Amino acid sequence: MGVHLQGSLTLESVESGLRFRARFGERTHLLDSGEGAVAPDPVMALLEALTACGAMDVISILRKQRRAVTGYRIEMSGERSETHPRRFVAIALTHHVSGHDLDADAVRAAIELSETKYCSVRATLDPALRIVHEVVLHDAGA
Amino acid sequence: MGVHLQGSLTLESVESGLRFRARFGERTHLLDSGEGAVAPDPVMALLEALTACGAMDVISILRKQRRAVTGYRIEMSGERSETHPRRFVAIALTHHVSGHDLDADAVRAAIELSETKYCSVRATLDPALRIVHEVVLHDAGA
Repeated sequence: MGVHLQGSLTLESVESGLRFRARFGERTHLLDSGEGAVAPDPVMALLEALTACGAMDVISILRKQRRAVTGYRIEMSGERSETHPRRFVAIALTHHVSGHDLDADAVRAAIELSETKYCSVRATLDPALRIVHEVVLHDAGA
Repeated sequence: MGVHLQGSLTLESVESGLRFRARFGERTHLLDSGEGAVAPDPVMALLEALTACGAMDVISILRKQRRAVTGYRIEMSGERSETHPRRFVAIALTHHVSGHDLDADAVRAAIELSETKYCSVRATLDPALRIVHEVVLHDAGA
């Protein structure tokens, strides 16, 4: 037996445009594409899903280790092929972690644990996709 | 040379919680997980990204064929493994298309074209992931 996830996706712009509303109970996202888009498109949603999946693991692990994290921002960069279906061929994530007494090796170990063991999104992507990480620490001072 | 996509993901709930804001220019999503989450989590974002990617292709193709679509909703269902990393093992999408003079074969052909040729999200996922589609037409009447 597996774990089931259910939701719906509804076209909001019937006449023209590509605006859809995703719903999982009360939790929703707007997805939009093309000229004048007001929300992330599906490819952006994929990149944010992958990045957030890892980021949630990392912050959870650092908190369990009682490390004083005061800020966490990840710069995401994805390279796509030029020809259809324009898949991602490489993704680079730079993790900016702010706090006290931080240890880059601990952050790298948390990223590694997420990628190999916990992140459901990573495990659903093509295993051949290359993802590289960089860790930058920002000491918040004493 | 490839096509680049850039954005950022920032932790919004520093003390506790797993709330992150994804930004691609002015286009943003909140991602949230755990108790009291107010936005889709990363696994939901992955499912909506895949579904919206295909849906945008399908509605674009149907519009080019000048088919009168008055509504389009997709019920999404994903099955995940019970053991970590709890990857998706099967996804079922039921496409409810409303309109006049609709043709289920035309919708199925558009879905097929998206999956095999255009959908960047599908092409970034594990090729072994099983995705099944069902098409339900709702005639909007004369």
